[in-house]
Amino acid sequence: MKIDGERLLADLRALASFGKIGTGVNRLAFTAEDVAARQWLLGRMGEAGLEARIDGVGNVYGQTPGVTKAVLIGSHTDTVPKGGWLDGAMGVIYGLEVARALIESGVCAGGVDVVSFADEEGTYFGTLGSRAFVGTLDAGDLANATNGDGLALSAALAEVGYNQDDRARLDPARHVAYLEGHIEQGPRLEAEGVQIGVVTSIVGMRRMLVIFHGQADHAGTTPMAMRKDAGARLIGFAHGLTEKLREAGGAESVWNFGRMAFEPGAGNVVPQRAELLVEYRDIDLGVMDRMEAAIKSGVAAADGVGGVTTETILLEASRPAHMDRTVGAAIEAAAAALGVTALVMPSGAGHDAMHLADQVASGMLFIPSKGGRSHDTAEDSSEEDIVLGCRVLGGAVMGLLKPDAGD
Amino acid sequence: MKIDGERLLADLRALASFGKIGTGVNRLAFTAEDVAARQWLLGRMGEAGLEARIDGVGNVYGQTPGVTKAVLIGSHTDTVPKGGWLDGAMGVIYGLEVARALIESGVCAGGVDVVSFADEEGTYFGTLGSRAFVGTLDAGDLANATNGDGLALSAALAEVGYNQDDRARLDPARHVAYLEGHIEQGPRLEAEGVQIGVVTSIVGMRRMLVIFHGQADHAGTTPMAMRKDAGARLIGFAHGLTEKLREAGGAESVWNFGRMAFEPGAGNVVPQRAELLVEYRDIDLGVMDRMEAAIKSGVAAADGVGGVTTETILLEASRPAHMDRTVGAAIEAAAAALGVTALVMPSGAGHDAMHLADQVASGMLFIPSKGGRSHDTAEDSSEEDIVLGCRVLGGAVMGLLKPDAGD
Repeated sequence: MKIDGERLLADLRALASFGKIGTGVNRLAFTAEDVAARQWLLGRMGEAGLEARIDGVGNVYGQTPGVTKAVLIGSHTDTVPKGGWLDGAMGVIYGLEVARALIESGVCAGGVDVVSFADEEGTYFGTLGSRAFVGTLDAGDLANATNGDGLALSAALAEVGYNQDDRARLDPARHVAYLEGHIEQGPRLEAEGVQIGVVTSIVGMRRMLVIFHGQADHAGTTPMAMRKDAGARLIGFAHGLTEKLREAGGAESVWNFGRMAFEPGAGNVVPQRAELLVEYRDIDLGVMDRMEAAIKSGVAAADGVGGVTTETILLEASRPAHMDRTVGAAIEAAAAALGVTALVMPSGAGHDAMHLADQVASGMLFIPSKGGRSHDTAEDSSEEDIVLGCRVLGGAVMGLLKPDAGD
Repeated sequence: MKIDGERLLADLRALASFGKIGTGVNRLAFTAEDVAARQWLLGRMGEAGLEARIDGVGNVYGQTPGVTKAVLIGSHTDTVPKGGWLDGAMGVIYGLEVARALIESGVCAGGVDVVSFADEEGTYFGTLGSRAFVGTLDAGDLANATNGDGLALSAALAEVGYNQDDRARLDPARHVAYLEGHIEQGPRLEAEGVQIGVVTSIVGMRRMLVIFHGQADHAGTTPMAMRKDAGARLIGFAHGLTEKLREAGGAESVWNFGRMAFEPGAGNVVPQRAELLVEYRDIDLGVMDRMEAAIKSGVAAADGVGGVTTETILLEASRPAHMDRTVGAAIEAAAAALGVTALVMPSGAGHDAMHLADQVASGMLFIPSKGGRSHDTAEDSSEEDIVLGCRVLGGAVMGLLKPDAGD
């Protein structure tokens, strides 16, 4: 199988022209740009020899004809607002190129199926397409999802005109593995000078809103000792929480205090309400539970102190997803065959692969992100790294399609 | 001199009908409600026997005729949005009632002049009227002031049609003292069960914006050690600052962290920018300087740590203003004569009196605020306290107008 680097890059650039803004892309799910990009991809799949269609939630799915076993390769082609040209798109075009190269090679031990999942970025409903593909999307999810402007997902889908009755689905009898190539979206590969990352697990994430309730008082006339200062109490809590999370977390745990806000927010009014958005991630559910306990015990200890009451709301939660060791080994072996060392690492961001991993042996490959940037028009990777990533993925497919693989 | 409590309360209620919203008042400077209230006040001053006019910035100023010496009593009749019925209004009606009672009594050792200063609350320019009255308002202040909707003060004044050439002014040859009665706007009198507060000084205030600059990174994929987290650094700074301010401040110093905000403010993005609004007040300029030094040394120590740079912007500053001891003693003596003990205390909020105090012996009297509330429709004081405050003020005027007073 011969990966054509120039063809791969040309397809990536062609895809980036849909919704192009400067060096980046604005291609939110089910906008005209997103729909046009799906239609273009459908055409490219057909030209590659795949039997392709767009299903009822917008998944573009192409199968290699004449095979009974296939490695599924995919990712997504929608973007965040003012996003980059590689996030998702690269993984889809990797699939297209590997499928195409395999068909051209005449190897017939098995094939490659390619999928571009709809709305991974959650314009309406995060990882909509991959959830639908593995069958964990329920009717309520579809019926209730809306975008930031309040437009219903069902209305957006009806407007686009996809065949609502058709759902592309994972086929356990056919799909021997799922592979997703992606930019790292972080600084580690670049910092360590490594071109390929092999993902062990996708971290689980929980996002909690911590709210302190106090009382608005005049900040000039109310003596310090007579205040119920939600802001001051929250600052003390947040300061202490950093140390608690460090103790509770593991070596690769991350957390973020992404938002802190006081109300009413005036210089001369003691904050009546203060909130802190705490997000934390780890690949180990036990570690995540310890971190949650640390937050909750801190909040409970603060409750009632200085006349301030506390509250926590769990806004979002996802479980860690573990990649398959055999698939990971196939990626490492393919990298080694090309003389490249790979860094074995967790993924700190969520991906469609986390849903696939529950039902099929799955693996992810990362390439370096320049400056660790993503979800931004500045997102970029070198052409050399992009092409190398596809060659490694192609090598992994060959390893996984060997007659004895996975036995 | 006989203060008529019922008449005083009736006038206060009549004034509260202009811009009435539920239990409160919405009477922003130079709105139709504010202008109508000024016109009503002008009429009440005339009925009381004062020679009254509205000057070019909207100050309503009435002089007792036939006297060469007068105590000036005043405050303001404009409110904050959705404000209370007593803040400012009570001090003006105190002046009206004391002037009226003095005229009725036939005492002729001197008189009372009454003033309602324009735009104390700063819809266009804070304490506009009192600055104009003492001559510290320059032409640029007038020309540049706008309200929150961008409407120019000069346009608002032209619209109302006040005589731009007329400026009522403090008359050092006539005015032996300035007195301002006001609700406390804080909880101290109520908490201590005292009906009268005698103000020693009005605190100075400085408002500083502390800004930390970091870098936005993906909060899942960026290892903790590789972040430039403006938010986390600011939390640590703010926590430490509380202790520093406690050490630097005096026994009555107050400070407030009224606003804390992170950008971009998303759960999964490391804060790129974080700001903290720090306000602090004291009656001693030296103490204020020590507090400012504490903030600046903390900010300087944080600069560059963890890749985060720092900045401070001084947004507002006012100097402490000291009330006159003789005037304060006259208020205390008047309270004692009515069998009431007074609490000697600073004012934590700014008032028109801070401008008057630079040029004339000034004093302020506080009455309790229910629940310490103000700048809110819930603002209230008991009728008993309102009437008692006026009686004490009347007694203080009699003390100050004695032939030997102030010699």
